[in-house]
Amino acid sequence: MKNTSAAYARAGVDVDLGNTLKDRLPALVKKTHGPRVLGGIGNFGGLFRAAFHGMKDPVLVASMDGVGTKLKIAVLANRHDTVGEDLVNHCVNDIAVMGAQPLFFLDYLGAGKLDPKVFTEVVAGLARACRRADCALLGGETAQMPGLYHGADYDLVGCIIGVVDRKNILDGSRVRLGDALVALPSNGLHTNGYTLARHVILEKLKLDVHDRVPGLRGTVADELLRVHRNYEPALRSVPARTLHAAAHITGGGIPDNLPRVLPANCRAVISKRQLRIPTLFRIIQEAGKVSDEEMRRVFNLGVGMVLVMSANDAPSIAKRLRGRIIGHIERGERGVEFA
Amino acid sequence: MKNTSAAYARAGVDVDLGNTLKDRLPALVKKTHGPRVLGGIGNFGGLFRAAFHGMKDPVLVASMDGVGTKLKIAVLANRHDTVGEDLVNHCVNDIAVMGAQPLFFLDYLGAGKLDPKVFTEVVAGLARACRRADCALLGGETAQMPGLYHGADYDLVGCIIGVVDRKNILDGSRVRLGDALVALPSNGLHTNGYTLARHVILEKLKLDVHDRVPGLRGTVADELLRVHRNYEPALRSVPARTLHAAAHITGGGIPDNLPRVLPANCRAVISKRQLRIPTLFRIIQEAGKVSDEEMRRVFNLGVGMVLVMSANDAPSIAKRLRGRIIGHIERGERGVEFA
Repeated sequence: MKNTSAAYARAGVDVDLGNTLKDRLPALVKKTHGPRVLGGIGNFGGLFRAAFHGMKDPVLVASMDGVGTKLKIAVLANRHDTVGEDLVNHCVNDIAVMGAQPLFFLDYLGAGKLDPKVFTEVVAGLARACRRADCALLGGETAQMPGLYHGADYDLVGCIIGVVDRKNILDGSRVRLGDALVALPSNGLHTNGYTLARHVILEKLKLDVHDRVPGLRGTVADELLRVHRNYEPALRSVPARTLHAAAHITGGGIPDNLPRVLPANCRAVISKRQLRIPTLFRIIQEAGKVSDEEMRRVFNLGVGMVLVMSANDAPSIAKRLRGRIIGHIERGERGVEFA
Repeated sequence: MKNTSAAYARAGVDVDLGNTLKDRLPALVKKTHGPRVLGGIGNFGGLFRAAFHGMKDPVLVASMDGVGTKLKIAVLANRHDTVGEDLVNHCVNDIAVMGAQPLFFLDYLGAGKLDPKVFTEVVAGLARACRRADCALLGGETAQMPGLYHGADYDLVGCIIGVVDRKNILDGSRVRLGDALVALPSNGLHTNGYTLARHVILEKLKLDVHDRVPGLRGTVADELLRVHRNYEPALRSVPARTLHAAAHITGGGIPDNLPRVLPANCRAVISKRQLRIPTLFRIIQEAGKVSDEEMRRVFNLGVGMVLVMSANDAPSIAKRLRGRIIGHIERGERGVEFA
């Protein structure tokens, strides 16, 4: 008896499709599950054993985030296999800068009408990134909301839970005057600044997502859908005594994110010359007539993560991580200065 | 220097408003924090101590959900102080049916343009429900996504994490033949069936949200914005040896949700006469010409939670919780039968 949803279907919701998708590609999702995940899929909640061996005072670290209007590019290009990775990696980075390793992740996909192809590609991307990050895809929700989401639009939200031993929490308290700032390169815009980028590239430059970006190798879709990098392995590879703080460069750019991990009286001084802003950002700045200051607040400008570390160790670590020393910590008002 | 976002503002994003709201009403949020929450607000992730005293094998239980198109009613009525409670209570119930107590909650609010009034009302509702549920509002994200959300529309998503000692997980394995089904009354539609309810009430009956619903006391907004009940205290009050399983009645109704907690060869037989469907659902059914079967899959029909328990204890517990025995468990194919 599957044809009982006549009235609801007329109102725009496909109950049967929703229920089918609720099973959420169990094989893909199962691959992300280690021995700490209990039970099957389809419960009211996901189960994860809270056994944190070797930790004296385990602390859960949680973060919730979305992909932003990068989703609009995915919809225009009809390419949905990367936004799931963007979301997972963004979330992993947000807790990695606090010293945490990921445990599990949940997602929410809201759409007007569920398209099985879109759904499958998105979940495949989520599962791929979770597996790489050693993080269980523990649950999720798909909501059909006709009248709220229009056309092929959808929103994608994720929540990550990780764990860190209390003594290893990175909260900026270890930052010292003279520390070096090591920038790890971003892979394009990551997940920030897309409203402005779309405005400039699609409307001002009147490029289609399938057009090549003048001066770059890829199409608009290629350049704007580059996957948000996961920096957790890089962070984990830096010895705890060397790494004093880390800032994930997302909305608000370096000026808004780096100060969040600086103690009072610590000022980050960044060499403009060392920033080496990638071409894509320069194209957006020029075509959009955007000021330097606004560019720094809206975009990552090629820097996905800033590590604050002892100056002695910085050169070798920067080299190993293919990063670059872009500045240092001075005494002064908490904030960032571009010199 | 707050006037640096000229280009981004033209593209539709208010960076300064976003940053202001990022502080997320710290006083309200702080009130939900107990001693297990570490650090301040504004970190990249929220911190919660994973110390579960008295539990031998603690298991985290996680669930992610949205409010659905009940949000459209909130927008039409410009009344945003209840949807936060809906979301928290929905999430609390989803993990309570697995035996878990809530620990912490995170939210995501996506909108075209952030309206401070809406934002404040929503977060106040979230915080109020979290405080009542003894659950920390640990973090959240607000995203301005012009071009994805239209007009005053927004989406609201929540993720809850709770904990249960492994031996106390309610997974249905304790359900026995002859067990009684106790229904706990819902408070209106809770958060399900709104696409159909809106279609019937706003379009077919052509009622405005401020019109009184014929046959009921309240306006359309009053009746459709009734707050999703939190059943966690009721569940907790039933002795563990008595309570064999619990099903939160959400999307899919009793027929889709109750079987999720039934073992093989256990069939729930529900007395139609005992269901006593509230007037609001009868109005929707009649005006929308919806079949009985579809009504049962789309709406909770007055039942927010079904408890499966030993038949001996059911009458006194049903009375104390102001519930009603609506059926029992028989041998048969896993499923639900309305007799």
